[in-house]
Amino acid sequence: MKKKRTELLLMIGIPEAQADVLYATGFLAPDEVVVYLRGKQRLLVTSPMEYLRARGEARNVRVISSRELILSKETVGTPTDWAEALLRRERVRRCSVPGWTPVGVVKALEARGIRVTVKPLALAEERAVKSAVELAAIRRAQRAAVSAMRAAFGALATASIDRNNTLRLDGRVLTSERLRTLIEVELLAHGCSAVGGTIASCGEETADPHGQGAGPLYAHRPIILDIFPRSRKTGYWGDMTRTVVKGTAPEEIIRMHAAVCAARRAALAMIRPGADAGAVHARVQEVFAAKGFCTKLDGKKPCGFIHSTGHGVGLDIHEAPRISTIGGTLQAGHVITVEPGLYYPGIGGVRVEDTFVVTSTGCRCLAPLPLGLSLGS
Amino acid sequence: MKKKRTELLLMIGIPEAQADVLYATGFLAPDEVVVYLRGKQRLLVTSPMEYLRARGEARNVRVISSRELILSKETVGTPTDWAEALLRRERVRRCSVPGWTPVGVVKALEARGIRVTVKPLALAEERAVKSAVELAAIRRAQRAAVSAMRAAFGALATASIDRNNTLRLDGRVLTSERLRTLIEVELLAHGCSAVGGTIASCGEETADPHGQGAGPLYAHRPIILDIFPRSRKTGYWGDMTRTVVKGTAPEEIIRMHAAVCAARRAALAMIRPGADAGAVHARVQEVFAAKGFCTKLDGKKPCGFIHSTGHGVGLDIHEAPRISTIGGTLQAGHVITVEPGLYYPGIGGVRVEDTFVVTSTGCRCLAPLPLGLSLGS
Repeated sequence: MKKKRTELLLMIGIPEAQADVLYATGFLAPDEVVVYLRGKQRLLVTSPMEYLRARGEARNVRVISSRELILSKETVGTPTDWAEALLRRERVRRCSVPGWTPVGVVKALEARGIRVTVKPLALAEERAVKSAVELAAIRRAQRAAVSAMRAAFGALATASIDRNNTLRLDGRVLTSERLRTLIEVELLAHGCSAVGGTIASCGEETADPHGQGAGPLYAHRPIILDIFPRSRKTGYWGDMTRTVVKGTAPEEIIRMHAAVCAARRAALAMIRPGADAGAVHARVQEVFAAKGFCTKLDGKKPCGFIHSTGHGVGLDIHEAPRISTIGGTLQAGHVITVEPGLYYPGIGGVRVEDTFVVTSTGCRCLAPLPLGLSLGS
Repeated sequence: MKKKRTELLLMIGIPEAQADVLYATGFLAPDEVVVYLRGKQRLLVTSPMEYLRARGEARNVRVISSRELILSKETVGTPTDWAEALLRRERVRRCSVPGWTPVGVVKALEARGIRVTVKPLALAEERAVKSAVELAAIRRAQRAAVSAMRAAFGALATASIDRNNTLRLDGRVLTSERLRTLIEVELLAHGCSAVGGTIASCGEETADPHGQGAGPLYAHRPIILDIFPRSRKTGYWGDMTRTVVKGTAPEEIIRMHAAVCAARRAALAMIRPGADAGAVHARVQEVFAAKGFCTKLDGKKPCGFIHSTGHGVGLDIHEAPRISTIGGTLQAGHVITVEPGLYYPGIGGVRVEDTFVVTSTGCRCLAPLPLGLSLGS
């Protein structure tokens, strides 16, 4: 019987964009690299330009300059060339690649006689369960989000309300754009950037979960603040949302906020190792339905609870596990958001989101902050 | 003879991450969408959650909610499900996809009986030639970079030099981190974010072209500032680098800076429609060699001119055309960086970069700023 050879996982990608590559190497770089993982053999190939930095920063891999593999005077070659040369050197003619690998790269490898098997999840499941070091990194990003949220609350609390119910701060209108800048400056001070933007929407805008918000902020209307910083140093994300009202909250928004908090409590009560993520999501749907908040996905104006209950957070802002209809079993060490929300065009939206770690007995919020709707008048 | 059917280009991706998707739709979103381009038929499929916003923001496409395609009560399906349902509705069983498409998506489509052809470049060549609207968007991002660069110059000029040659501003040490925050706050004020980070490195750090820099900034040593903002609104990038010295520049850095400026002039003199990008890059290499600056790509310490001369800039920070050994013909409307640089471990680095548009007769800098090395004492 032939001995089964250890499977080779080959990755060709940009560490900043492909979390699997960053996870495997700890090397946060903007240019393509090649990663070769085969049992204990863990190699990282970079361009000559990135070589010295990779030697200093990469972890758990041996760093190779592409010049060790491609010795042409005319060109340094493409990362696909490096991969082919490395496989030739290692006398390997087949490999697995992650599902995210560009099909163009796979075709190029196949054209050179390499047999490629697609491994859809690759490192996703391993990445979903966080180490203590990873947990600390996510907590730091989440604490940056809390600081930025507090800074925004402070600005809203200090703001005055003019005759048109417009908020004013330091003599000028307080806009979504101004509040967003204030939030992101605070994130920068904590070593994080708002790579994906920041949501600071108000009034009817809040009925769109991804609407970033524009123009003046108003009293007596919902304001959604969704802050998702990425650490510059580690690449880990945080994710947090609050819905607040300056002045008097509309009755409907108060009811929606209470329902969102109830749905959150119901979800949190279920989260523990072994729980089914699909069941948690279904429970949130039930709570909303029981409180009379209907969801409509069809037609021109989708409304109600129109997104999933949550998602994993790590080196990707959205990663495994999904707390959605997709389902899956929760495990200790998973880091997930819980973010029930309700959205009604013409009325507005409410979403409350925190990031939690699944513990041996339940879950724990990584960086708590009160959920309250009111910011005072 | 059978009439040739118009080719279908199918794209499944996140507009914020896949520039082709953003280019085709004008819809800047963080979630996956499906784009269907076939002659005049241009369709965009979004989740129900994104549907209303897509209707408001997308251009040159008809927006479809995935609920029009998948009518299950249990699930909204994956974007691959939406694509399959759309192809079934349109009675199409074959499509082309861009080379960047995840191989997992291609395998899933093929498993459902769809014949997939890979189109490596997809929209890359079309995207390389910019319209007037695109040019204006890139120029705005580039002007934000100029403002941020001026803010950084101002801080460096104002800073004092203490006994250890450390720079101090407002009584505190001026660090890479502080200067970077100052730069990025300025970018935020211009509606741009430093998605990929900002380089503010000093001294020996500058020998690493991608080293971001950390710790105190010093007088009499090279400081590299590389600023590449992305417009929050349009998604277009700018890209600019300067190398400066506070105090007295070392002789070697002065010589390197002069060589870099000479290489830049030689490159700019060649850039016009019809010029070969590979020849421009070769010319930069020649200028450096003629001035006695050798390049060494092999071994443990690569040094000299260790990167390409430039790259296209648009909805991606690095896109076609490449001004490198890869070559290719320059066309009017291409937007490119020209960024010769020299790097010697133990001495430091010098890079000067601007973004140019190729005109009918040559090229024009999108947002000029003096190249000078000295910031005074």
